Amino acid sequence: MKNQSQGFLRNTLSIAAAILIISGCAQAESDPLPSWNDTGPKKAIVAFVERVTDPRSPEFVPPAERIATFDNDGCLWAEQPLYFQAIFMFDRIEKLAAQHPEWNEKEPFASVLKGDRKAALAGGEKALLEMAMATHAGMTTGEFGQIVDEWLATAKHPRTGRLYTEMVYQPMLELLAYLRANGFKTFIASGGGIEFMRAWVERVYGVPPEQIIGSSIKTKYEVRDGIPVLARLPELNFIDDKAGKPIGINQHIGRRPIMAFGNSDGDFEMLEWTTAGPGLRFGLIVHHTDAEREWAYDRESHVGRLARGLDEGPRRGWTIVNMKDDWRVIFPFEKR
Amino acid sequence: MKNQSQGFLRNTLSIAAAILIISGCAQAESDPLPSWNDTGPKKAIVAFVERVTDPRSPEFVPPAERIATFDNDGCLWAEQPLYFQAIFMFDRIEKLAAQHPEWNEKEPFASVLKGDRKAALAGGEKALLEMAMATHAGMTTGEFGQIVDEWLATAKHPRTGRLYTEMVYQPMLELLAYLRANGFKTFIASGGGIEFMRAWVERVYGVPPEQIIGSSIKTKYEVRDGIPVLARLPELNFIDDKAGKPIGINQHIGRRPIMAFGNSDGDFEMLEWTTAGPGLRFGLIVHHTDAEREWAYDRESHVGRLARGLDEGPRRGWTIVNMKDDWRVIFPFEKR
Repeated sequence: MKNQSQGFLRNTLSIAAAILIISGCAQAESDPLPSWNDTGPKKAIVAFVERVTDPRSPEFVPPAERIATFDNDGCLWAEQPLYFQAIFMFDRIEKLAAQHPEWNEKEPFASVLKGDRKAALAGGEKALLEMAMATHAGMTTGEFGQIVDEWLATAKHPRTGRLYTEMVYQPMLELLAYLRANGFKTFIASGGGIEFMRAWVERVYGVPPEQIIGSSIKTKYEVRDGIPVLARLPELNFIDDKAGKPIGINQHIGRRPIMAFGNSDGDFEMLEWTTAGPGLRFGLIVHHTDAEREWAYDRESHVGRLARGLDEGPRRGWTIVNMKDDWRVIFPFEKR
Repeated sequence: MKNQSQGFLRNTLSIAAAILIISGCAQAESDPLPSWNDTGPKKAIVAFVERVTDPRSPEFVPPAERIATFDNDGCLWAEQPLYFQAIFMFDRIEKLAAQHPEWNEKEPFASVLKGDRKAALAGGEKALLEMAMATHAGMTTGEFGQIVDEWLATAKHPRTGRLYTEMVYQPMLELLAYLRANGFKTFIASGGGIEFMRAWVERVYGVPPEQIIGSSIKTKYEVRDGIPVLARLPELNFIDDKAGKPIGINQHIGRRPIMAFGNSDGDFEMLEWTTAGPGLRFGLIVHHTDAEREWAYDRESHVGRLARGLDEGPRRGWTIVNMKDDWRVIFPFEKR
């Protein structure tokens, strides 16, 4: 009995020691943001998170109020040569063309079917809306999710040949995980379609569907042969862009974020609203400066135009990420 | 050293034994729903939760999909003699009357100021909308929250003399906590105003603002003297009632609930949508049957009308709570 007891004790102590050693190593080794260089933005993020999560800090924020909102296009995944949802739209028009012979004669569809997507976009907002409704409405929410899933499983980015869900920014994936590990609730607030994002965002970013805010069309509740469905209608409901972002954030979250992340002037009001709140606040803009590993664009870009954010951001205390200098890795596939 | 080791071992074993004993006792003693009688509804709730949370059960549901939605008026708090938000509206008209001398001559306001709230409501939807906009719009979201807070801190229920936030159902408070303890995310999906609820729901029900779905008016983002605000506009944005509930739920959550709780035909579509999903589903209707401790009303009521739910609920497999028989306690203040 005595030997047994001593054996038990020895084992217990060995396990305890092993746990201490392992956790010690983990602590020493773990950098939660390994794809960020040790430059200003990373330091600013870590310093902010440490201040708002330290219970002894005067700037401590209780976990329930640790809300962080992220733009998607150009902030979490790429947006060149065109917003990926627009590419989905064009691909969808080509796929549906057989059912719509009239499209061969009708702009903007005729241009798309001739392979001239640029000409199709020349029709401006009206043409865009027409194409968006022809491809995003007329089915149930469940059917639309499947359509997006199927597209994402096969469509490839024209430059990298990667799936679109691989065109995400590794440093931002790490940032999302780091914030969640520190008690933050991470939300997406994107001009993109809310249902388009819900098809893949949880799997790719770890953000659940109830934490996604986006643009939307109206839906109608119908019972078809005893089965209730939500039918997607060709009518705009909400545009979650520019001044729409604080409105959408208030509508969905009902609480002002303490951190906000964007990359274009479409995010300006979200950052303004976030950083105008009381207490410590954090705003960050990803500036696309790396033409070699990604793309370089800002003031004159046809997507993700960024001018006011560059002009006013620094004096408003916002952190500007210079992608070229501040990100060690951009896409996850670079690491392999 | 040997004695020390043995002492350490003895202590370790004693602590382990104590933990086993304590947790065993806790298990035996704790009833998570003490204000529910041991009748059908309580048994159905517990059986459902045990089946969807048991990893060995074929009906196991991962935590991320454990979404439960609750109506508010008549389901989580009382709604007699009138929806509490309508009482807030009337009280607010009286308070604002001095700034609106024209109201003395103008219906429906004139009736309210004469003390005849019933006559004011006789003007139907148009009158109601006019009164709602006069009291709910024209300020910022922050100001509106303060107005609601102040009202809730002082206004008393006409029959019980209690604060409105005391007129909540103890069995439902226990149910919310029980579901959360079992990994559910609890949401409110109410016809009431989303911002009206956000002023107090977290404190009273433990439901955070981002898990509240409700009716809303439009807001506008403005920068006033350098300070961004969301101005509340006198324009309807969304009515979260009847077929609007599944629409609002899809918009906010993007995932179909597996449990839904209501009390009126305004909740019918929410329960229908919820229980039509694949796998195990749960719908429950609170039937107000206790004229003595609360109120008794259903088919002919001016608030919380319930007819179709009573007619079709049982055959759809929905649980009907008979408040009189199934709830041991109704309001928290009864327990004192």
